[in-house]
Amino acid sequence: MKRKKTQVGVPTIERIVRYCRYLERLYYVEKRDVISSAEIGEALGLKPTQVRKDLSYFGEIGKRGVGYSVEELYFHLMGILPCPKDCRLFKIALFGVGRLGKALLDYEMFSKRGIDIVAVFDKNRQKVGKTINGRYIYHIDEVETVLRAQNVSIAIICVPAAEAQSVIDRIVGSGVIKGILNFAPVDLTVPKDILVSNMDISAELEKLIYFIREKEYGQPLSV
Amino acid sequence: MKRKKTQVGVPTIERIVRYCRYLERLYYVEKRDVISSAEIGEALGLKPTQVRKDLSYFGEIGKRGVGYSVEELYFHLMGILPCPKDCRLFKIALFGVGRLGKALLDYEMFSKRGIDIVAVFDKNRQKVGKTINGRYIYHIDEVETVLRAQNVSIAIICVPAAEAQSVIDRIVGSGVIKGILNFAPVDLTVPKDILVSNMDISAELEKLIYFIREKEYGQPLSV
Repeated sequence: MKRKKTQVGVPTIERIVRYCRYLERLYYVEKRDVISSAEIGEALGLKPTQVRKDLSYFGEIGKRGVGYSVEELYFHLMGILPCPKDCRLFKIALFGVGRLGKALLDYEMFSKRGIDIVAVFDKNRQKVGKTINGRYIYHIDEVETVLRAQNVSIAIICVPAAEAQSVIDRIVGSGVIKGILNFAPVDLTVPKDILVSNMDISAELEKLIYFIREKEYGQPLSV
Repeated sequence: MKRKKTQVGVPTIERIVRYCRYLERLYYVEKRDVISSAEIGEALGLKPTQVRKDLSYFGEIGKRGVGYSVEELYFHLMGILPCPKDCRLFKIALFGVGRLGKALLDYEMFSKRGIDIVAVFDKNRQKVGKTINGRYIYHIDEVETVLRAQNVSIAIICVPAAEAQSVIDRIVGSGVIKGILNFAPVDLTVPKDILVSNMDISAELEKLIYFIREKEYGQPLSV
């Protein structure tokens, strides 16, 4: 994610999300009362000093030598992240009703976290005008009107790589979008005030392969 | 991605992948001859000094005051990343044939980059024994046998969050898996020598919402 200076960095928020996921399990499933920063670090592959630093960032809540109350820490961190109510404030549109787009429309975690996709777009006239999971499919030509009318602030991009930039240009032209979650395997050019989060699935797999290859076959970087 | 010390860090490789995607477009679509580190930085939201540092990491290739040959730089960086031939060396299995799993089985970029999913697993007996996109669906009980027989080294996890850890334990038990691409919104516990890359789609959206909320409504961290 590209962004300008703000109070908390992206990596910190990423870790806060991970702490929450972990504490959720401890609290609801394992019914634990107390947890130490060392244990959290061990479970998530982080240094205990990093964990303590992150957790103290939002106020002192642990007790030295005793650890953190799982309940207190969990609800404290959940208060920092957007709650389902916050998520509903930010309306989301999805572009590209291919297999991935369809999968996201039906994604269990979205509804659980209050994330709702209010408008769906495609350029295929065969799909436009139909309904998918209760959402009407608009033609991409209607993008400015619909995004403004529904006050959409986040776009999820599931169109093919070759079409992504032209779709983005139209979305940005609407003037209402503030953030983009991009699944197209290209780097998008957007104005600096729009946040972009890239989920490049094949790049992620290539990264895994890179590091496995490095581990298995030693230093492959003598290119 | 959690990992031990190796020659090149994860963020560097992430940027190398982004340079490649960008240069691919410059080379094939825009037919550019020369590019400067400043232009690359501008397009990808990185400092030119960062770009130069990354690119010099793998050998000196640019000319001061002239910039980089797009062709030379593109193929140079592609030589660092796993090529489709490398990707084929690492066999991949997919777990969970829900909507997301199905979308990945049909994902255009995978075949383009030589990424091939050789085995598919589900626990639903209605699905097991059928074929999807040319792949036979195995029951999760057959996991050890199939992973060993096919020498699978990477697992893609698309099962629901509540089932992810038990699936992972069985996969790890096979002794052949070296890397995991996890789409389940949970932190997995795995032995330290297995690389895990998390793609938590709803966490990514929550992060976007967090930062948009922060920008729109100011400092929300007085919790």
